[in-house]
Amino acid sequence: MDAAEFRRRGKEMVDYVADYLENIEKRQVYPDVEPGYLRSLIPEEAPEEAESYEDVVKDIERVIMPGVTHWHSPYFYAYFPTAHSFPAMLADMLCGAIGCIGFSWAASPACTELETVMLDWLGKMLKLPEDFLAGTEGRGGGVIQGTASEATLMALLAARSKIVKLIQADHPERSETDIISKLVAYSSDQAHSSVERAGLIGGVRMKKMPTDSKFSVRGAALQKVLEEDRAAGLIPFFPIHSSNQLQIFFFICKIFWKYSFNFNPHKWLLVNFDCSAMWVKKRSDIIGAFKMEPLYLKHDHQESGIVTDYRHWQIPLGRRFRSLKMWFVFRMYGLKGLQAYIRKHVGLAKEFESLVRADQRFEISADVVLGLVCFRLKGSNELNETLLKRINRARKIHLVPCQLAGKFVLRFAMCARTTESRHVQEAWSHISHLASELLQELPH
Amino acid sequence: MDAAEFRRRGKEMVDYVADYLENIEKRQVYPDVEPGYLRSLIPEEAPEEAESYEDVVKDIERVIMPGVTHWHSPYFYAYFPTAHSFPAMLADMLCGAIGCIGFSWAASPACTELETVMLDWLGKMLKLPEDFLAGTEGRGGGVIQGTASEATLMALLAARSKIVKLIQADHPERSETDIISKLVAYSSDQAHSSVERAGLIGGVRMKKMPTDSKFSVRGAALQKVLEEDRAAGLIPFFPIHSSNQLQIFFFICKIFWKYSFNFNPHKWLLVNFDCSAMWVKKRSDIIGAFKMEPLYLKHDHQESGIVTDYRHWQIPLGRRFRSLKMWFVFRMYGLKGLQAYIRKHVGLAKEFESLVRADQRFEISADVVLGLVCFRLKGSNELNETLLKRINRARKIHLVPCQLAGKFVLRFAMCARTTESRHVQEAWSHISHLASELLQELPH
Repeated sequence: MDAAEFRRRGKEMVDYVADYLENIEKRQVYPDVEPGYLRSLIPEEAPEEAESYEDVVKDIERVIMPGVTHWHSPYFYAYFPTAHSFPAMLADMLCGAIGCIGFSWAASPACTELETVMLDWLGKMLKLPEDFLAGTEGRGGGVIQGTASEATLMALLAARSKIVKLIQADHPERSETDIISKLVAYSSDQAHSSVERAGLIGGVRMKKMPTDSKFSVRGAALQKVLEEDRAAGLIPFFPIHSSNQLQIFFFICKIFWKYSFNFNPHKWLLVNFDCSAMWVKKRSDIIGAFKMEPLYLKHDHQESGIVTDYRHWQIPLGRRFRSLKMWFVFRMYGLKGLQAYIRKHVGLAKEFESLVRADQRFEISADVVLGLVCFRLKGSNELNETLLKRINRARKIHLVPCQLAGKFVLRFAMCARTTESRHVQEAWSHISHLASELLQELPH
Repeated sequence: MDAAEFRRRGKEMVDYVADYLENIEKRQVYPDVEPGYLRSLIPEEAPEEAESYEDVVKDIERVIMPGVTHWHSPYFYAYFPTAHSFPAMLADMLCGAIGCIGFSWAASPACTELETVMLDWLGKMLKLPEDFLAGTEGRGGGVIQGTASEATLMALLAARSKIVKLIQADHPERSETDIISKLVAYSSDQAHSSVERAGLIGGVRMKKMPTDSKFSVRGAALQKVLEEDRAAGLIPFFPIHSSNQLQIFFFICKIFWKYSFNFNPHKWLLVNFDCSAMWVKKRSDIIGAFKMEPLYLKHDHQESGIVTDYRHWQIPLGRRFRSLKMWFVFRMYGLKGLQAYIRKHVGLAKEFESLVRADQRFEISADVVLGLVCFRLKGSNELNETLLKRINRARKIHLVPCQLAGKFVLRFAMCARTTESRHVQEAWSHISHLASELLQELPH
């Protein structure tokens, strides 16, 4: 395919994408396929000879779409929102065309510099403390990680490296292995699974602290455990303040807040995945975790102190020009547009909450703060499991459950950009109808 | 921006992308900007009110392009090739539109299943042993990782977890920390920096084995070290066969070949970054490394044994629908088209090698096997450093160096899809001219 054909095919694809998104609510939100459905629909091997674009494109509806869970359908209320907007898609097209791998400043200066400035823009929007910003003279700054899992892991590795150096400064006789074997990180029993994973990968003990009725860790409880651990010769080093499971998917993981902070624009801020924003107060902490300098990656400016080589901030070496998405989205929505979008979702969650509260058969399981409503039928876990199964089997809307204080709970997450009040009303009347059917079947 | 505007703007962007790529060789391959250039070109904060798309788009040439290193210019011979093709870009547009997060089978069955089958297609193309393929009944299979760094780390973590379990089965009294502190992984002194990093992250000792004149580790040398380490109470557990630095960027990292294999289609196989293919012989090894099952990610089919939940195979939780790129590229090029593309690049590297060999002032520093030519002026490292500086300062072509057996060497890597013989000839006559200038300045 040459540039001339790309002009034609690209425009056709733009129309396909626009058609898909304009008509997405007509598609069944969750697919009917069984595991293994796809393999039999396509050949067992790649073709020897090139195929035509027409052949490939017609397989999108035949092979792919029947197996897609439509995350951007206004009937999708499962998991968490994943950001999606037209400006972000346009920026991604440009990102693909430039196709640079921005591991160092020299590898594409625009890629590094726009990222630093966009993280400053976002940090200011979130009103982060000044020392998290890079500015022109700051010691802190931001970086785009692929996911919060990677940000959590990087923060933990940076902290691990720092505590080892601090302890060895006073006790040069203690080995790194010995120190690491005594480290303890603390998270909440409501923390995201990625937090526990970071501990496993980094080879450090992780304690999950119990939470209160608001699903928060109490200071006194944490204090007691810290004292016990210190008395036992352990080294507390890494408190992870991750917002609880209820809201985790919106404001995910305020990790290591004293030193670093992580937030996912690719969830609720209209910047398509992947774009997980992470800030540190001291660049040298994160860079020091595992800086490597092979000659083939060196460049003239790197020792100048004024350039950023983002490869030292992350697990992978390669990285795309992801800040273009932030730039397009922030400018084309403006702060007011972004705020209006979040407020709309929060309003819709409140609307759904009112519908649930008005129905005596149901209960709300946790405060509705942002875009997530946790609710359940008053009654057993089994009853709620059955209700959820029926909701998902009907394929009209899609939800997933969670567990709160031993209770099986349904999660209604505001996800799609195009969800409106009518969709929420429709979803509720559907749930309410299925609940009625279910309750009528029960013996009185 | 609504779908109607996206139709218009998307088509304009398709034209911008086509124009950029059709005319890329007219742009200076490496930018003139100094560190910090971008910040002063844009506001310090995101705008309150939405801006127009015209305003955003005109800033691409004003703000972004002056700072771009053009990796897809036929005058770019630095670092390594990063894959780039029109079919991959079209697939990425579709990926962005669907915008699913395929962490489990249920999160979007097509996303998981196409990936498994595409990794089988690619595994067959590479003639991998049968047990690396998933098929319908295999115990192995493939996954797309973001980068080889992540694949290496996952392989190391899986091996670490497996060896700990094996040892604890015989010696239940030994703690995980104790065992990990005795583990040793082995790589070559020519291995990629990501290999050493994986060891640092995983908290295990990593030994870099010296290499011979062909930059390979000799079996006898490795055997000797293994015996010494065993005698010292250490536990050798992880041999990394990574192809040497010369070729590392093409067939990167045959990691842990006995159990897993990694190869980057996003380097030389026309599939835009990111797409790092990793296969394992036993899925259970990699899944066992750190499986977590919070209720909100569970689904009906996951215990059936016939579905794949790729979140257990990788560090991040989220993942894009990246296999679409492989599907589009493999079909639109066909096996023959892909082979022809690789052969063309290898041929161009051979052509450049002949030009170097025909000039008595130069020497070839390592066998030219694939698309990389390592060469230098006969003479001191300083002389070659000066030559490289002048080449890069002239901005006509872009190269980076490497170090081979203490020698400063220039790397001429075949990178861009559109590089032709005339570009290689032009690059050589430019290098040769700068070398003449430099040599004339030297005292006789």
